[in-house]
Amino acid sequence: MTEPCIITVAITGSLPTKANNPAVPISVPEQVESTHAAFEAGASLVHCHVRNDDGTPSSDPEKFARLMEGVRRYCPGMIVQFSTGGRSGSGRERGGMLSLKPDMASLSTGSVNFPTRVYENSPDLVDWLAEEMLRHGVKPEIEAFDLSMIFKAVQMAEEGRIEGPLHVQFVMGVKNAMPADRESFAFFAATLKRLAPDATFTGAGIGRFQTTLVDWSLDAGGHCRT
Amino acid sequence: MTEPCIITVAITGSLPTKANNPAVPISVPEQVESTHAAFEAGASLVHCHVRNDDGTPSSDPEKFARLMEGVRRYCPGMIVQFSTGGRSGSGRERGGMLSLKPDMASLSTGSVNFPTRVYENSPDLVDWLAEEMLRHGVKPEIEAFDLSMIFKAVQMAEEGRIEGPLHVQFVMGVKNAMPADRESFAFFAATLKRLAPDATFTGAGIGRFQTTLVDWSLDAGGHCRT
Ligand SMILES: [Zn+2]
Ligand SMILES: [Zn+2]
Ligand SMILES: [Zn+2]
Ligand SMILES: [Zn+2]
Repeated sequence: MTEPCIITVAITGSLPTKANNPAVPISVPEQVESTHAAFEAGASLVHCHVRNDDGTPSSDPEKFARLMEGVRRYCPGMIVQFSTGGRSGSGRERGGMLSLKPDMASLSTGSVNFPTRVYENSPDLVDWLAEEMLRHGVKPEIEAFDLSMIFKAVQMAEEGRIEGPLHVQFVMGVKNAMPADRESFAFFAATLKRLAPDATFTGAGIGRFQTTLVDWSLDAGGHCRT
Repeated sequence: MTEPCIITVAITGSLPTKANNPAVPISVPEQVESTHAAFEAGASLVHCHVRNDDGTPSSDPEKFARLMEGVRRYCPGMIVQFSTGGRSGSGRERGGMLSLKPDMASLSTGSVNFPTRVYENSPDLVDWLAEEMLRHGVKPEIEAFDLSMIFKAVQMAEEGRIEGPLHVQFVMGVKNAMPADRESFAFFAATLKRLAPDATFTGAGIGRFQTTLVDWSLDAGGHCRT
């Protein structure tokens, strides 16, 4: 039996601003509106970042709370996933909103280079974010920017520090991290299957690689994210 | 025609102290003595870290200079490789000794988690270390702690920022980075061959994985390091 594909929408990343694209939703009401449009079009999961009024990344739990409340009201049944990504803070403030109990949250299980900086997820921070997710019943989406992060996630699941089955997103196309490479994508998928047969995965391509990764992911039996 | 295997000796890592093992060479004369013993036993390359008198990691160019002078005198023809590894400093001081023109130096082309911290090699630092090596005619040994670092090294070589042919060390068995996984080792070797057919490689296993990685490396046509 084939599993229905989960269509994810990332309404607001951590970087684009109104200056780049006036259509980028920044305020919480704009985000709720944009999520609702995607929901009507068939999206079943929303990946959420929040912003300050000036457009810079925020980790304010109050904003996450209002966004989740709006999505719950206007998009019944939609899966709400909070980002714990690095631009919203440098330490535990990145997980301060997990007690709001979203359905899911992103969790990077390692550190990697990004285009102009180190994306730091120290071992301590990874452990703490995972503990918070376990404590509040939040399912992690593992953001794997490289192969070792898959191994680390599987090990954490085996130790009971992440509740299974694992769901992993293979992120490719970020400069200085993993490029969009089809053989590597296939190896990531095969490795995850070997280490954790019940795990699911999806591919996320950055920028011009977005549709490429959707194709690879669907071909390999993964989910899609738009 | 098979290429002779290069036997590497890492006489002093960045961590072990006299308290762990009284035989660890710490002072420069001790390091020269230890290198000479390995040279007599057949080692052809020495990987060098230097230490302060109290055993803590150092990046003092003066110590590197005395160590290289001793090796050149007592171990004629031995390849001298300086470590630019992260424990010896946090920024450009890690490359302050490259102007001494050792034969080789280690170069990590990305960041990764280590057992208790982030091993930070920011994009700027990687670029600068590679520039210094190019400027002083020092051949890099790429330290690949994960797959993306292989891609990054190949890209830098294609852009002329690293002089080819590439030589890459696959490092496995570091907690929170890549575990010692044979399928991954084979994939690393195959990927390097696909991207840079003239590249050479070696495997380095940490701690109890040391001999395992030597085996895998020799089986796959790589070099060995003890
Ligand atoms: Zn995100
Ligand atoms: Zn699924
Ligand atoms: Zn070293
Ligand atoms: Zn060779």
